[in-house]
Amino acid sequence: MLARPAKAFQRSTLMKTDTMQTNDPALKSFIPTPAESHFPIQNLPFGVFSDAANPAARVGVAIGDQIVDLAALAEAGLLSVNAEVFRKASLNPFIALGRPTWRSTRAAVSELLRDDNLQLRDNQALRAKAFIAQDQATMHLPLDIPGYTDFYSSKEHATNVGSMFRDPANALLPNWLHIPIGYNGRASSVVVSGTPLQRPMGQLKLPAADAPIFGACRKLDFELETGFIIGQPNALGEPIDIANAEQHIFGMVLLNDWSARDLQQWEYVPLGPFNSKSFATSISPWVVTLDALEPFRVASPAQQPEPLPYLRQNGKNGYDITLEVSLKPAETAAAQTICRTNFKAMYWTMVQQLAHHTVSGCNTRIGDLMGSGTISGSTPESFGSLLELTWNGKNPLALADGVQRSFIQDGDEVGMTGWCQGDGYRIGFGAVSGKILPARG
Amino acid sequence: MLARPAKAFQRSTLMKTDTMQTNDPALKSFIPTPAESHFPIQNLPFGVFSDAANPAARVGVAIGDQIVDLAALAEAGLLSVNAEVFRKASLNPFIALGRPTWRSTRAAVSELLRDDNLQLRDNQALRAKAFIAQDQATMHLPLDIPGYTDFYSSKEHATNVGSMFRDPANALLPNWLHIPIGYNGRASSVVVSGTPLQRPMGQLKLPAADAPIFGACRKLDFELETGFIIGQPNALGEPIDIANAEQHIFGMVLLNDWSARDLQQWEYVPLGPFNSKSFATSISPWVVTLDALEPFRVASPAQQPEPLPYLRQNGKNGYDITLEVSLKPAETAAAQTICRTNFKAMYWTMVQQLAHHTVSGCNTRIGDLMGSGTISGSTPESFGSLLELTWNGKNPLALADGVQRSFIQDGDEVGMTGWCQGDGYRIGFGAVSGKILPARG
Repeated sequence: MLARPAKAFQRSTLMKTDTMQTNDPALKSFIPTPAESHFPIQNLPFGVFSDAANPAARVGVAIGDQIVDLAALAEAGLLSVNAEVFRKASLNPFIALGRPTWRSTRAAVSELLRDDNLQLRDNQALRAKAFIAQDQATMHLPLDIPGYTDFYSSKEHATNVGSMFRDPANALLPNWLHIPIGYNGRASSVVVSGTPLQRPMGQLKLPAADAPIFGACRKLDFELETGFIIGQPNALGEPIDIANAEQHIFGMVLLNDWSARDLQQWEYVPLGPFNSKSFATSISPWVVTLDALEPFRVASPAQQPEPLPYLRQNGKNGYDITLEVSLKPAETAAAQTICRTNFKAMYWTMVQQLAHHTVSGCNTRIGDLMGSGTISGSTPESFGSLLELTWNGKNPLALADGVQRSFIQDGDEVGMTGWCQGDGYRIGFGAVSGKILPARG
Repeated sequence: MLARPAKAFQRSTLMKTDTMQTNDPALKSFIPTPAESHFPIQNLPFGVFSDAANPAARVGVAIGDQIVDLAALAEAGLLSVNAEVFRKASLNPFIALGRPTWRSTRAAVSELLRDDNLQLRDNQALRAKAFIAQDQATMHLPLDIPGYTDFYSSKEHATNVGSMFRDPANALLPNWLHIPIGYNGRASSVVVSGTPLQRPMGQLKLPAADAPIFGACRKLDFELETGFIIGQPNALGEPIDIANAEQHIFGMVLLNDWSARDLQQWEYVPLGPFNSKSFATSISPWVVTLDALEPFRVASPAQQPEPLPYLRQNGKNGYDITLEVSLKPAETAAAQTICRTNFKAMYWTMVQQLAHHTVSGCNTRIGDLMGSGTISGSTPESFGSLLELTWNGKNPLALADGVQRSFIQDGDEVGMTGWCQGDGYRIGFGAVSGKILPARG
C-alpha cells in the first residue's frame, strides 16, 4: 500500500495503473517539460545520480530538466518502497523487487508529479529536498551488470559487414536468417555516458605485412546500439518462453559498442571479437522502461524464412525509436549529425534475442545488459558505424570546416541520442557520449 | 599481526613465509595425508563449504580428507583475518584483502596444521569445531565470478580443430601463433562440480539439410581445461604488464567447458561460440594457490615466431600438472579414464593470457575466471575433448562392457582430475565432475 492520504483521485489513478494511465499524452507535470524534452511525465526513466550537496549515489527519476530523488519521496512516505532501496548506487535492488513494484513505483511518481496533484507540487520543503537540477548532478552507471551480451540483429548492418569483409554476393552468412546471432561481451568495461576513453592498444596486421605489429588502434569506430536490461532473471535450465520474454525486460538504454576495427579484423576468426571490443562499452544513464515505450510499438520487419517455433512471436515487437549519432571532431567546436536511423528496422526483436539466449538453458541475472547490435538502416546516411558510413575508410565523411573523418581521431567526441516521437511530446533516452583520449604512452 | 602466543618456533616460521616454507616436502600434518592425497599440508587450497550441522556456506581449506573451517580458527584468535571474512559464501571478500593476506593466511594455516605444533593438534574442543570431514560437507561455487573468459591456448587442440573443420594443410589460423586467442564466456552459468546438467536444446543443421532444426544437442562434449582466478584487479585503461601478471592471479581450478558441437558448428561464424557453450561450465570446488604450485613450474614450449614484446616472458611460466578425464557411461558402474595429458604442453601461458586480455585497457575484477582452453597433448590418448578423441565421432571410443561413445549420452558422468606429482606427495586439484540429464521435455 502507498503510505499517503487516500484521496479520491489517488485511488482512481492507482486502479488504472495497468491500463497505462501513466502514458496518457494529456498528462502534464508541474515541472515544465517543453515538447522537445526527453523526459516528460509520460517517460519517467530510472537512473543513479549524485550531486555536490549529497555525493552518495542514489536512485532518481528524470523529469524535464530535473531529477526527482526517490529516496526523498520514500522518506516522506510517498512511495511504497523502503527508502533504503533507493539509497543504493545501482538500480539492481529496486529491480529485484519485481515488475509489479517497478510499475507501481512509476505510477506513483507519475501521480506525484502531475500538475493537478498538490501533494508534492505545493510542498516547498519537500521539493527543495527531492529535486536536483540535471545540470548540477553527476550521473553514474545505473546498474551492476553481471553479464553483457551483444547481438547482431540489423540485417542491413550484417549485410554491409559481410559485403565488405567476406562476399558481397553472399553477404549474409547462412545462419543469420535463422539465429539472432549474438556473442558474450565484456561486462567489466561497461561505462556510463561521459566517461572519457583511451584509444586502445593492440595487435594489428597491416595489409601488406607478413606479421602483426603492436600499436594504437588506427581504425577506432563507434557502433550505434540500444541495450535492454534484464529485470526478472531465469534459472539455469529454465529457458524464457518467447511469450513471456517481455516481462523479463526492465527497460532500455542507448549503447555505444566502441570497436577497434583493425584489432577486430586480425583477432576475430574463429572465436569472435575480444580485445577489439572489450576495452569499453558506453551506455546512457537513464533506463527507459518498456512501459513508457508501450505506445510506440510497431510491427518488426517480416521474417522470411519463418523462424523456428521457439522464435515465433505475436503482436508488435518492434519500437519506433528515432536514433541519431553526432561527431564533434577535435578541430571544431560543433557536433555534427552523421547518422539518422530508427530502431524499428531491426530484423530480430528483443524478445527473440532473449528467447534464443536462454533456449539452451542459459540463465540470466538482474542487470544483465543485452545489446541490439549496430542499428543500420537501408540508406547510407542511416548506417550505424563509421565502418559502414565511410565504407571501411574508402569514402571519408566530409564534415564542416573542411574536416574529414574515416575513423575516430584523438579528441573526437561521439554522441548518440534517441527518442520516440509522440503527439507533442517525446519519450527520450537522453544521450550517450564519449570522448576519445590519446592512447596510453 | 597474528593474534596468538609468540612462541619461538612461530616467529621463525613467520619470517620464512616468503621463502616458501609452506612448500617444504618434509612438512607433515597431524591430519593424515597419504601419498596419493590431493591435499597434503603443502597444498592448502581454499574453498566454500557447508555441512548439515551448519548449513551456512563458509570458507575452508582442504587438508587430507578434512576441511578446516577458517572462521573457527579466526574466532579462536589463530588467524589475523577477521572471522567475518570467512563466514561468506564466496572467497571474494578474503581475496580482496590482498596477496600478502592470502599468503600469510596460508602460512598460518600451514603452521597450525603441522604435526609438531600442539596449538591446534592438542586442542580437542577446537578440533571438534574446526574440522569437517569432506565426505560430510557440501561444496559450493567458491567464487562470485563477475567475468569468465575462455582462451584457446593448446597448439595441439587448435590444430586438431582446424584440421577437422577447416583445412588440415593450414590447420592453425594465421593469428594463432601471435595472439593468445580468447573469447568472452558466460559467467552466469558457471557451476560447481557435482551440479547435474540438462542436455541443451538449440538449433542444429544436419549435414544433408537445407535448414536448421530445433532439438536436443546430439554432439555433447566436454573440454578439459584449467582456469585461473583474478585476485588483484586492474583498472580500466591500465593494462597488466606481463612482468607483474602473476601477482594478479589468486589460484587455479579444473574446468569443464561443456560444448554442444552441433550447435557450435552452426552458430559460431562470425562472432564465436554462444549457446553451444553458455548453458554450463563446471569448475572444481578447491582453488589451488599459485604459491602451492610454485615447486612445479616448468618452462613452457618454445614460441616461434617470437611473440610481440608485450607478450614476452621471463623464467618458467608453465606448470607440470598431470590431468585425466574419466567417463562413466550410463550403462556401467565404473568410470574409465579416456584422456591423460599435462598442462605443461600449453603454448600460451597464463601470464601471457592475462597480459593480452588487458593490453587494450580492459579491466578485470576479483573472482574473474580465465579458462585455459582445451588441454590436448600430441598423442591421441592425450586429446582433451571427445571431438578430438573420436575425431568428430568417426572413431568412437570403445569402453568396457562393449560400450561405445562418440559423444556424451544421457546419464553419462564426466570427471576430471589433476595433480602435481612431488616426491612422495601430490599437490592436487581434487575433481570436477558432472552428470548429464536428459534434455528438457
